[in-house]
Amino acid sequence: MAKSAARRFSIGVDYGTNSVRALVVDVANGEEVASHVFNYPTGEAGILLDPKDPNLARQNPADYTEGFYKSVKAAVRAAAKVPGFAPENVVGIGVDTTGSTPLPVDKDGMPLAMQPKFQNNLAAQAWLWKDHTSHAEAAEITRAAEKDPANYLAKCGGTYSSEWFWSKILHCKRTAPAVFKAAYAWVECADFVPGFITGNLDPNTIPRSICAAGHKAMYHTDWGGLPSEAFLARLDPDLVKVRQRYADHSMASDEKAGELTAAVAKKVGLFAGIPVAVGAFDAHMGAVGAGIQPGTLSKIIGTSTCDMMVASMEKGLPDIPGLCGIVPGSIIPGMYGLEAGQSAVGDIFNWFVNYLTPTGYTKKGDAHVNLTAEAEKLKPGESGLLALDWNNGNRTILVDPLLTGLLVGQTLHTTAAEVYRALVEATAFGALTIIKRLEEYGVEVKEVVNCGGIAEKNAFVMQLYADICNRPMKISRSAQTCALGAAIFGAVVGGAHKSTSAAQKKMTGVKSTVYRPRKAAAAVYAELYELYRALHDSLGVAGTQADLSQVMKRLIAIRDRVRKG
Amino acid sequence: MAKSAARRFSIGVDYGTNSVRALVVDVANGEEVASHVFNYPTGEAGILLDPKDPNLARQNPADYTEGFYKSVKAAVRAAAKVPGFAPENVVGIGVDTTGSTPLPVDKDGMPLAMQPKFQNNLAAQAWLWKDHTSHAEAAEITRAAEKDPANYLAKCGGTYSSEWFWSKILHCKRTAPAVFKAAYAWVECADFVPGFITGNLDPNTIPRSICAAGHKAMYHTDWGGLPSEAFLARLDPDLVKVRQRYADHSMASDEKAGELTAAVAKKVGLFAGIPVAVGAFDAHMGAVGAGIQPGTLSKIIGTSTCDMMVASMEKGLPDIPGLCGIVPGSIIPGMYGLEAGQSAVGDIFNWFVNYLTPTGYTKKGDAHVNLTAEAEKLKPGESGLLALDWNNGNRTILVDPLLTGLLVGQTLHTTAAEVYRALVEATAFGALTIIKRLEEYGVEVKEVVNCGGIAEKNAFVMQLYADICNRPMKISRSAQTCALGAAIFGAVVGGAHKSTSAAQKKMTGVKSTVYRPRKAAAAVYAELYELYRALHDSLGVAGTQADLSQVMKRLIAIRDRVRKG
Repeated sequence: MAKSAARRFSIGVDYGTNSVRALVVDVANGEEVASHVFNYPTGEAGILLDPKDPNLARQNPADYTEGFYKSVKAAVRAAAKVPGFAPENVVGIGVDTTGSTPLPVDKDGMPLAMQPKFQNNLAAQAWLWKDHTSHAEAAEITRAAEKDPANYLAKCGGTYSSEWFWSKILHCKRTAPAVFKAAYAWVECADFVPGFITGNLDPNTIPRSICAAGHKAMYHTDWGGLPSEAFLARLDPDLVKVRQRYADHSMASDEKAGELTAAVAKKVGLFAGIPVAVGAFDAHMGAVGAGIQPGTLSKIIGTSTCDMMVASMEKGLPDIPGLCGIVPGSIIPGMYGLEAGQSAVGDIFNWFVNYLTPTGYTKKGDAHVNLTAEAEKLKPGESGLLALDWNNGNRTILVDPLLTGLLVGQTLHTTAAEVYRALVEATAFGALTIIKRLEEYGVEVKEVVNCGGIAEKNAFVMQLYADICNRPMKISRSAQTCALGAAIFGAVVGGAHKSTSAAQKKMTGVKSTVYRPRKAAAAVYAELYELYRALHDSLGVAGTQADLSQVMKRLIAIRDRVRKG
Repeated sequence: MAKSAARRFSIGVDYGTNSVRALVVDVANGEEVASHVFNYPTGEAGILLDPKDPNLARQNPADYTEGFYKSVKAAVRAAAKVPGFAPENVVGIGVDTTGSTPLPVDKDGMPLAMQPKFQNNLAAQAWLWKDHTSHAEAAEITRAAEKDPANYLAKCGGTYSSEWFWSKILHCKRTAPAVFKAAYAWVECADFVPGFITGNLDPNTIPRSICAAGHKAMYHTDWGGLPSEAFLARLDPDLVKVRQRYADHSMASDEKAGELTAAVAKKVGLFAGIPVAVGAFDAHMGAVGAGIQPGTLSKIIGTSTCDMMVASMEKGLPDIPGLCGIVPGSIIPGMYGLEAGQSAVGDIFNWFVNYLTPTGYTKKGDAHVNLTAEAEKLKPGESGLLALDWNNGNRTILVDPLLTGLLVGQTLHTTAAEVYRALVEATAFGALTIIKRLEEYGVEVKEVVNCGGIAEKNAFVMQLYADICNRPMKISRSAQTCALGAAIFGAVVGGAHKSTSAAQKKMTGVKSTVYRPRKAAAAVYAELYELYRALHDSLGVAGTQADLSQVMKRLIAIRDRVRKG
């Protein structure tokens, strides 16, 4: 056999909610040879909170730059021990981030928050995806868009979200005018990081991610890019300036944002000039890392969930009510990218563990593990509980941040493990609701590939998802698909593969373990889903006139039947 | 001044859910000179549970007899140190118990559970008031009564409860036929104890409490006592036997059940022959001990709540839908006794502390105190939470055991103290719902006198009750009104007072502390009550077609306004 060529590597840098991860990958087969995680040092697990406003969630942009240096340097150092690795064999870098996480920047494109004057100003920080302070502005934008003939919300489910770009900027204008005034422009975190490491930070020319623009800023080629100046001016004349300083061409991640600068390269132990891909959101690149293709639902299950699909652009697609976005090229260049999701999944389990779990489960070992040990002994329906998974609002299919959690069915004997299981089930019912909506609009879900921490580690959760969605749950081979997806784009812009799909074929896969639905469980859950849906529609959809008087009774009837049987 | 006559005393013996209390009282002024509490030794805090059926709650009748000996003996011994006390100065004894708590007895009136054969048989024990295993039978009895021209449910709110006499007995027949067959008769705990200590146990002649019969067994003079044999035979022919062995005249507690037997007297350090009053339920005697009179709502707030009123029999009273019972003489002889209540109050707070409270509140000191310290700092509406108080079903005004708890409004930041406060508020909203129903039917609530452990000790809870019900909350002077009420009847049958009302004037009172509604809090709670009522009716009343889609949004709007203001 011929001696194989020298190994080549790409690096994916994945900016999550609490930390940033750098991953060094062999471009030939996706082997993950080294990685390093850097936890953001600022705030509570990287998040700046306001005790007076549970809707607020910001981040310190300095954590992003510092995070790049620290994570990539450590990953490169770790890779140095790998046979065949050398800094000169790194062909490209890809970056994914959370989003919509816009930040105000100065004329040079540097974050306002890095100026001493604004250092402690919450409005000058990055507005983290899960910041919901702007719900009034989101509703206002939705109303304005509904009146506009351009139909700007057609591609994002008919409702503009408080999590998104324009809502946050408009809220900043209204509540922190000094910050708004000082901001020369606004960039997404997904644009800022590639811009920063390639030196292409000029707000007027910084490469803008089609993923961020299309899913969060109402950018679409159908109406020539961002919403019109006239539309934005009706919301607030000052938004026109923000639009004018937003590069007018947004790009997919198989395009280059630039090359690594010498200054940054030196800090991380690489060479200057390495191609860096245009950024995109974590879930989108995660879907690529999970091997997404038409018919695959890629679920990234972490603190929240992102449900991603791609679809051929030849056949066209109807607009799908309640779907966060349908954007050409946002996941795989040349295909529609569809984004749905749940505003909180792991966050709900963590909330329960942190706030409502008694000593018995917390004093020894991991509380999630202890709760799970007891919760998985329960039969479906046995607790008589049912929950809604809206502690952080509902992203799909209701697109409504002004929704909250609900738990029903508790008796005087309800245990913490029963509640924990009900919360897990609630997130699975939410997942099923998304699948149903996709299929109702002709997007067939042929397989589900899960990734993210929960999919990777939590057999209990994944089995419930299989039972409740009544379909097999596959698990991505990689435990860090977002970073892997970023590395895939690094490989593509570095010339290691001809296309994203070609790179995916070589660099992704699924595990042999598949969670399959259990028939008896699925049957009970089909009954419970009816009740979930009754509560979902009654509490979540205006104008629903439902008779809920049998909900508690049916839960009790199911409980009694299950306990006896 | 003339030397006062020798002091005279009566003894009240109060059988609660977890313990029995004996109280020695000066009949001249109600001074409580000695008491003793005996915790039932059997089961979990005195209750026999079935891990497979959360509806089941039974008690060991041996705890009742043992409890009389232990509690009265110790109280008498403690009283011996009191100036003027001597066993010969005890003029009478009164007994109150939980109910409906029926137990199967043999031909001699002794509990089947005391026979070795049935000792470990759950069906042979006392069926504690909060046992809800018989909900199917309760529904069946309701349906049968609706078809019967005698209108047997007119005096008990239109719905027969799973907590009551005939439901439990019918369920025993269906599920434990051997026990049913072995039972010569069924007696209420409130009949058993006075019968046992006076030797009047013969099931055919044992003095039966009008309170137990009227509120729980559909006994009413309007239809000549218990429901007809024909009616019972339609439910099950074997119920006819139960009726035939139920003494046909039920009595108020100003009548004697008999005199203390020599055997019992010896065990407790008293003399034989002391008059013993006919028994009644704890809440009814508690209302007497709290000084109930027309216009007074007497709330006994403990694990559950009983809301008692009396009304003149001259004017008559309409039947009140959802009220547990309207029975002549069940509280004060010669007046209507009205009973309403909430199936769980303190039980809900205890459930939360036992099952869902994290270490921070439990590791040091009392968890209720720790949660309260934080919960009382919150403003009304600040948490955005709202709960239904149905963890143990709803007794008034829905009379439906097949209802369960509900919590709505939780975010990712909701704390245990916030939930705790929401649960307290829920019970107060439930209390207000009862007051509204009484007033809708012309029973004016001029004052509210609270008693029971929570009223006595918990300023936080009582202040919320004042704010939410928007009326002053008075507290009974006695901390043990049930036992005091029993002692009042002991004093009446012992000849120390001419009537119950006369005895009350001398022996009861309220504390100087009155919880008054705070205007701003009451205004917010009026808004929240609308939402409570929307959930209450939607989840609890068949046929309600409500649009609940604004509930979460209004909770958020109130929360945001309160936090800002």
